[in-house]
Amino acid sequence: MTPSTTARAQLWEGGGSFRSIEVELPDPAPGELLVELRAATICGSDRHTVSGRRPGACPSILGHEGVGEVVASRRPGVDVGERVVFAVTVSCGRCRHCRRGLTAKCESVRKAGHESFEGDWQLSGTYATHLHVLAGQSVTVVPEGIPDAVASTAGCAVATVMAVLERAGDLRDRTVLVNGIGMLGMIAVAAARSRGARHIIACDPNPANLNQVAGIADELSAPGACLTVDVALEFSGVSEGASACLRSLDTGGTAVFAGTVAPVPAVDLDPEWLVRGWRTVTGVHNFEPRHLEQAVAFLAAEWEQLRWKEILGEPITLSELPAAFRSSSPATRMVVTP
Amino acid sequence: MTPSTTARAQLWEGGGSFRSIEVELPDPAPGELLVELRAATICGSDRHTVSGRRPGACPSILGHEGVGEVVASRRPGVDVGERVVFAVTVSCGRCRHCRRGLTAKCESVRKAGHESFEGDWQLSGTYATHLHVLAGQSVTVVPEGIPDAVASTAGCAVATVMAVLERAGDLRDRTVLVNGIGMLGMIAVAAARSRGARHIIACDPNPANLNQVAGIADELSAPGACLTVDVALEFSGVSEGASACLRSLDTGGTAVFAGTVAPVPAVDLDPEWLVRGWRTVTGVHNFEPRHLEQAVAFLAAEWEQLRWKEILGEPITLSELPAAFRSSSPATRMVVTP
Repeated sequence: MTPSTTARAQLWEGGGSFRSIEVELPDPAPGELLVELRAATICGSDRHTVSGRRPGACPSILGHEGVGEVVASRRPGVDVGERVVFAVTVSCGRCRHCRRGLTAKCESVRKAGHESFEGDWQLSGTYATHLHVLAGQSVTVVPEGIPDAVASTAGCAVATVMAVLERAGDLRDRTVLVNGIGMLGMIAVAAARSRGARHIIACDPNPANLNQVAGIADELSAPGACLTVDVALEFSGVSEGASACLRSLDTGGTAVFAGTVAPVPAVDLDPEWLVRGWRTVTGVHNFEPRHLEQAVAFLAAEWEQLRWKEILGEPITLSELPAAFRSSSPATRMVVTP
Repeated sequence: MTPSTTARAQLWEGGGSFRSIEVELPDPAPGELLVELRAATICGSDRHTVSGRRPGACPSILGHEGVGEVVASRRPGVDVGERVVFAVTVSCGRCRHCRRGLTAKCESVRKAGHESFEGDWQLSGTYATHLHVLAGQSVTVVPEGIPDAVASTAGCAVATVMAVLERAGDLRDRTVLVNGIGMLGMIAVAAARSRGARHIIACDPNPANLNQVAGIADELSAPGACLTVDVALEFSGVSEGASACLRSLDTGGTAVFAGTVAPVPAVDLDPEWLVRGWRTVTGVHNFEPRHLEQAVAFLAAEWEQLRWKEILGEPITLSELPAAFRSSSPATRMVVTP
């Protein structure tokens, strides 16, 4: 089979409108890669973009979670034929944030699945047959054994959870609340288990979501229960979830917020309560290259803990993507295959 | 001179009322010490207790900052004749908080200068000639060279600042806001300088307070200025100060609250802002034994940086203490000598 010289993609044109397009494959520049995608997954933030809840460059190729095979490489150490996942963010490595190790907040950050198709990074999203990986966008090789659809979640969902757990500190012997059992919450429950948490409480208003972690969490809870925990991980993305995480914190406790990536009402913070209890509240958005590596290592060791069939549902093809965005999916994450 | 068999103390009887008393010296039990005080300093929290802003056991001997000479020891490694400072908190070492290294929050914590005189720890405060140091109350030997009045501040003010700086993380090359330039704020400015902060902004509504750190901070600021910093240290104890610290935080920034140890109105926390900016807000109250050691080491190296004469004013005697509580002191900390 002759290698293709063009990529197919679903170009998002605003609202619920997509158009199937064909794009000339670029020649990678130094540090860059061309990856032929084997699977992509639909992150909730893309649903927010399409529904208008979150602004997004338009037209653009959406999708920032994916896994694929390197078909062209000008990056030393990354070879053609390797199966890789990749970071959402592309960083300069030189600005003040990059120099301090916060490359996700690079002053000139660009993001996979977030860039205008009319700019100089056309194949930036994973709802396509090919992804153009830029220099400054980290990649991690995926070991055999992890299915494509599962590996696809590493580059956003799982890596973000790894960043969240880093901020949460040592979980051994700790009581952990995971608030919001979507994709990230499920992974957080499994990851907290593997890191030695003593008691894990999963909280979500939807019993079906809780059911996904029924065998892993120690306790399933609807919102509103009176809880006391050492660590609270917030993935629900709503103010009530953030408040509930704060309220639950025991002395010395830490809350890590990751869900609230869209505007929400402020929550009350009691300065005396924070001080007298040595409590900590911290936020995480996206992740660093080390978290992508940790994500792949976590999946390699633990992926079979989670009910991926139920989480991911039946895969769809790229041509079915526009319909998938119009329907509310029964699965938490949908898998897109080229 | 025959060693005395009694201690003199100022017993606080509520409101602005004190009574000079004489108390039989106790025989130290295993792990305990008897310390003859050489100086005590008046912490702002005692002023809050006397003014009624903060509840306190009554009658009691107040005062938790002090330095003195060991006159009886049943603690291995601590010898008679050594000059020591001591922790505010007495911890059991066995409860869940102690086991996790948060001994300041021991489930059965007792505190120097906070205990009823009618209980079994009469000489618990430093407004006396002698202090009865309990087992579970850490002490640190003070090297020569640090004046008594300066050393006296180690066991509350300076050690708390050390705990605050630990929570703030590495200060090298960081921009630091110190909000509230009382005793703790002044020490924080000097300590941030010694830890390599790049730019230190001291903020206080009182120009006289700012003047105390004029030679150490890079910038003096009244509240209300629009600031952007990596680290904000809150010592003002008011909600407006806490809010200002939050508002000032750059991406990746950390705010450490230590001042708000009395009820104050809640402050607004924007969950999206916290998440997208990888920001952290954390609280510190009292300190751990390691911070007392760090406090003494800091004073040994840096005490001459601060204007102690202005900070501490003219020493008063124990018999002048009641009058000192009735007047508003021109000095930040007052020194009490037996």
